[in-house]
Amino acid sequence: MSVLDWLLGRPLSVYEQEGERIGPWAGVPILGLDALSSAAYGPEAALTLLLPLGALGLRYVAPITAIIIVVLLLVFLSYRQTIAAYPNGGGSYTVAKENLGQLAGLLAGAALAIDYVLNVAVGISSGVGALVSALPGLLPHTLLLCLAILAFLTVMNLRGLSEAGAAFAIPTYAFLGSLGTVVVVGLVKTLLGRGHPLPVAALPPLPSPVEAVSAWLLLKAFASGCTAMTGVEAVSNAVPIFREPRIPLARRTLTVIILALAALLGGIAFLCHVYGVGATVAGEPGYQSVLSLVTAAAIGRGAFYHFTMLSVVSVLALSANTSFADFPRLCHMLAHDGFLPDSFAVRGRRLVYTGGIVVLAALSAGLLILFDGLTDRLIPLFAIGAFLAFTLSQAGMVQHWRRTRGPGARKSLWINAVGAGATGLTLVVIAVSKFAEGAWITLFCVPALVYLFLRVKRHYRRIAREIATVEPLEPPEAQPPVVVMPVAAWNRVSQHGLSFALRLSSDVHVVQVRTETDDTAELEGTWDLLIKSRARACGLAEPKLVILTSDFRQFFRPFIDYVLELEGKHPDRDVVVVIPDLVLPHWYESLLHNNRGTFLRTLLRLRGSSRTVIVNTPYHVQPPPETEPLPLQGDPGPS
Amino acid sequence: MSVLDWLLGRPLSVYEQEGERIGPWAGVPILGLDALSSAAYGPEAALTLLLPLGALGLRYVAPITAIIIVVLLLVFLSYRQTIAAYPNGGGSYTVAKENLGQLAGLLAGAALAIDYVLNVAVGISSGVGALVSALPGLLPHTLLLCLAILAFLTVMNLRGLSEAGAAFAIPTYAFLGSLGTVVVVGLVKTLLGRGHPLPVAALPPLPSPVEAVSAWLLLKAFASGCTAMTGVEAVSNAVPIFREPRIPLARRTLTVIILALAALLGGIAFLCHVYGVGATVAGEPGYQSVLSLVTAAAIGRGAFYHFTMLSVVSVLALSANTSFADFPRLCHMLAHDGFLPDSFAVRGRRLVYTGGIVVLAALSAGLLILFDGLTDRLIPLFAIGAFLAFTLSQAGMVQHWRRTRGPGARKSLWINAVGAGATGLTLVVIAVSKFAEGAWITLFCVPALVYLFLRVKRHYRRIAREIATVEPLEPPEAQPPVVVMPVAAWNRVSQHGLSFALRLSSDVHVVQVRTETDDTAELEGTWDLLIKSRARACGLAEPKLVILTSDFRQFFRPFIDYVLELEGKHPDRDVVVVIPDLVLPHWYESLLHNNRGTFLRTLLRLRGSSRTVIVNTPYHVQPPPETEPLPLQGDPGPS
Repeated sequence: MSVLDWLLGRPLSVYEQEGERIGPWAGVPILGLDALSSAAYGPEAALTLLLPLGALGLRYVAPITAIIIVVLLLVFLSYRQTIAAYPNGGGSYTVAKENLGQLAGLLAGAALAIDYVLNVAVGISSGVGALVSALPGLLPHTLLLCLAILAFLTVMNLRGLSEAGAAFAIPTYAFLGSLGTVVVVGLVKTLLGRGHPLPVAALPPLPSPVEAVSAWLLLKAFASGCTAMTGVEAVSNAVPIFREPRIPLARRTLTVIILALAALLGGIAFLCHVYGVGATVAGEPGYQSVLSLVTAAAIGRGAFYHFTMLSVVSVLALSANTSFADFPRLCHMLAHDGFLPDSFAVRGRRLVYTGGIVVLAALSAGLLILFDGLTDRLIPLFAIGAFLAFTLSQAGMVQHWRRTRGPGARKSLWINAVGAGATGLTLVVIAVSKFAEGAWITLFCVPALVYLFLRVKRHYRRIAREIATVEPLEPPEAQPPVVVMPVAAWNRVSQHGLSFALRLSSDVHVVQVRTETDDTAELEGTWDLLIKSRARACGLAEPKLVILTSDFRQFFRPFIDYVLELEGKHPDRDVVVVIPDLVLPHWYESLLHNNRGTFLRTLLRLRGSSRTVIVNTPYHVQPPPETEPLPLQGDPGPS
Repeated sequence: MSVLDWLLGRPLSVYEQEGERIGPWAGVPILGLDALSSAAYGPEAALTLLLPLGALGLRYVAPITAIIIVVLLLVFLSYRQTIAAYPNGGGSYTVAKENLGQLAGLLAGAALAIDYVLNVAVGISSGVGALVSALPGLLPHTLLLCLAILAFLTVMNLRGLSEAGAAFAIPTYAFLGSLGTVVVVGLVKTLLGRGHPLPVAALPPLPSPVEAVSAWLLLKAFASGCTAMTGVEAVSNAVPIFREPRIPLARRTLTVIILALAALLGGIAFLCHVYGVGATVAGEPGYQSVLSLVTAAAIGRGAFYHFTMLSVVSVLALSANTSFADFPRLCHMLAHDGFLPDSFAVRGRRLVYTGGIVVLAALSAGLLILFDGLTDRLIPLFAIGAFLAFTLSQAGMVQHWRRTRGPGARKSLWINAVGAGATGLTLVVIAVSKFAEGAWITLFCVPALVYLFLRVKRHYRRIAREIATVEPLEPPEAQPPVVVMPVAAWNRVSQHGLSFALRLSSDVHVVQVRTETDDTAELEGTWDLLIKSRARACGLAEPKLVILTSDFRQFFRPFIDYVLELEGKHPDRDVVVVIPDLVLPHWYESLLHNNRGTFLRTLLRLRGSSRTVIVNTPYHVQPPPETEPLPLQGDPGPS
């Protein structure tokens, strides 16, 4: 078994496709981790902005969360419809492109692509951040931990979907189970305590208010809280990965994810309200996450508390996985439409889009390294991409229903229109209130990426036009080619090459470039004896020996100049460069030889024309006898 | 002017060689920096080991330094002879090889090579260490500073010797001038103060003794002090870089370096004694280098003090340069004898051995990064390499004189024999007293490197034997080759390739591999119309269309299996694989195309035989018209 097989699993045939498809049990971890993990930072983000209001801020948690849940449910209804309308994958890119035109599709695609990359970096680094705040001994290894988790996610996803789902199921369901328990226990205690339960563990006092309530502050808190909604488009984008019956299974998965998320968001907001839990300031002494405080208040700081925190950490770290499921599919669709290189459209050994997975891993590794594993500041950047995609997708669905005019289309149209309105409004709120904090970067990068897509497409179109032909086969040119072959010394390698060169033409130029360090004077002496007279004896045309000298110790320039000169002299003939090539039994042995052949080929390709044909004649050397002694004593100088 | 020309200077012809040769003025900075800079850490290293003796330790400074100076002068006399006997470069490698045999030469070469790499890392990091202890604000940028200095040294040396000498002259002569002034002023004040001068600036009190004097302690202090002698072999190794008259100029350079070093070592030791300067503990509060204390005592802490300290810092940082002058020459000699790859023997655009410079820079950058720019702990490792080389070199000279038997040979023999004895004894002292502190690493690495050299040599020998031939030209095989060409679709690229393929043989197999993502169904339809009937009309043999399918979405495996199968079927014919190749006007455009041709070539080279010839037929696409609009609206799917 090769290392690749062990790491990535054996290659799968296209007929094994069905076995790689998934149902809701695997779908919730694979496609829901991103959305569900938002419950861990959405409420905290909103509460942090309410901090200046002191205890008064808690009054606004419930209404803000309620609005977020309403928008979430609108988005849910909207995507439920998209799944049915686009069973082959109705990501925002497809829906916007098919209904609003290519440019809208590309905008949605660019927004999502940026979002997915940010999500990987932010998800992993916030998970590791939570881990190292629990175990400060790990702090110096933050970046290493981030990269290790990234490597784990990458390998799992290269292995394929069904295995990835299995690996992520345990932390996902542990997260849902433990946080669900916290919410239920808290609700029961609230009922028993007539609305005023006593916290099991003591809570830090809320700070005194330093600011009056303002609409701006509440808008900002709402915008921050909306990060809880990122990732909910994942299911609609990935409908094809479900097994049949595809649509109901995908819808059921989406329903589970959204309802669980809504319940968690609502439950956490309610418990914050009744227990009086506010945010503490991150980075200052005594900081604790809101989830930690709520859990401690409802259940106390026993074993269950630690289990809950562990599940939160793992879900945050693994939330990056949703990007791994969706980013490669998005790239595949863009590549299929000609906006990204073909290689993103090719499925690898395990039926996954290897190119997208590798690029996503590389880009997010770049971000993690650039920010030393501390990407929390990137959080404001990525809600905007998600909401831009939501809005375009739902506006597209409105257009879709307008054209469909089927039964129920009117109702569906209204659902999507309300959804589009709500997410569009949210988008404006986020863009304005988070502009200075980084939203401008996203607003700059999205058009830049769209421009890049269009440039790529233009390139492919142009090349396709340039090489397209309906002309038939061209017979080879009547004139034989001119053949040029570089030779440093007469040996089996050059002998082998010259033998092939003589087959091509009777006009063969054997070129020796004399540089200071080549010890090549012998060739002229043996030329008459070994080549000329032998060629005559065999009735072959004699090859010409051409000696070039280089004062600048360069081989390539004089040789290529000679080739180009020949091309100029013979405008109607091909110039074939025969490069003899020594092939060694082991790859590491080639480190000991200059790879002139490879350089020469690259240079000829760049500087030559369509008439410059390159021929490699390999000469394979046999593996050595094992018993050869080391040259402890012996001849000085290379033999 | 290209970027390379600006950075490295225009290429030099071999006829400009003489202008790149140097005299003593440039020779002292280029070849003496390593030796001279040792004055900055040798005395400190000895004094640090005498710390446990308290004030009593100062009594032993003078005798220890005296012994070091005696050994230094013996080495000097010895190398003076070597310069005359080996005017083409009498590095330890050459002298040991020619007189004691190949293995002794390789031992000396390995020891020196390790030494040179360590010297670069240690020199730069100790210079930067002194700098950041003066300017603590730079502390976080230690590694960056180290790498910047390394990059500067690398570029200067790639530019060539004469320019490097000019750049390093100022700090070298500033160092000699300022430290010389300190010593002279101190001596004069001692005379005026009748042996008991008053320090200008107050000195820290010497600690009370915590240990009694022991032979072991004094031996260790001596071994540490011997690091002051590293680098003195540089001149003898580099005799060819001097202009004529070579031998006297090289000797004069060596004399200047050694006498200056001896004077500085003696002067510093004397001033430590009369002023009562001991070492302070590095890394503890109040630490100051011995040079800083001596300068402050003799001159005070004014502007001159700061100038002196600055010159010490720059000389330490630049001392790495001696390695840059010598390491590439050593590699060149090893490569010339077949123990290292050929590329080390090639001189680059500026007549320097580019390969050696780049490898030295890479290895020392690796050490600096690995140790985060703090390589002080490596100091014990590198005196041992230097003394191993000294001893082998002088033992070789003894053998040399024994064979020469000329006039004065007997006297010369004795000088070298005493030198060999002294350095051999010192080597044993260092190896024993520093064994646990890291000398064992050098003692392990030297034989490992020798083994590597021998393996490389064995490889070259074997390949030379395998490819050597005195047989004449082989006429091409009588049978025409079988030609195989991969084609995905019919276009100008494949048209161009097929036209060349038909020239080679009448037996052409056009192979299409159908994978899931290739959209290639059309080829079969057009085949009859565009290729078959046309070939018939032109009187050409019809090429065969071969369709292969791949369930595993792989192009390469089925194609290569087909080629190997053809080779099996036709054991007496060449199999020529024609790879049509789309060449784009800009390099970045090729990122947008899969580079199947390159992969295919690599795989065929590895898996094929000497009969598998590879032909690349390039099709060059023209640069695009600038005005082409972006495809804002248009066809979906790649055209």
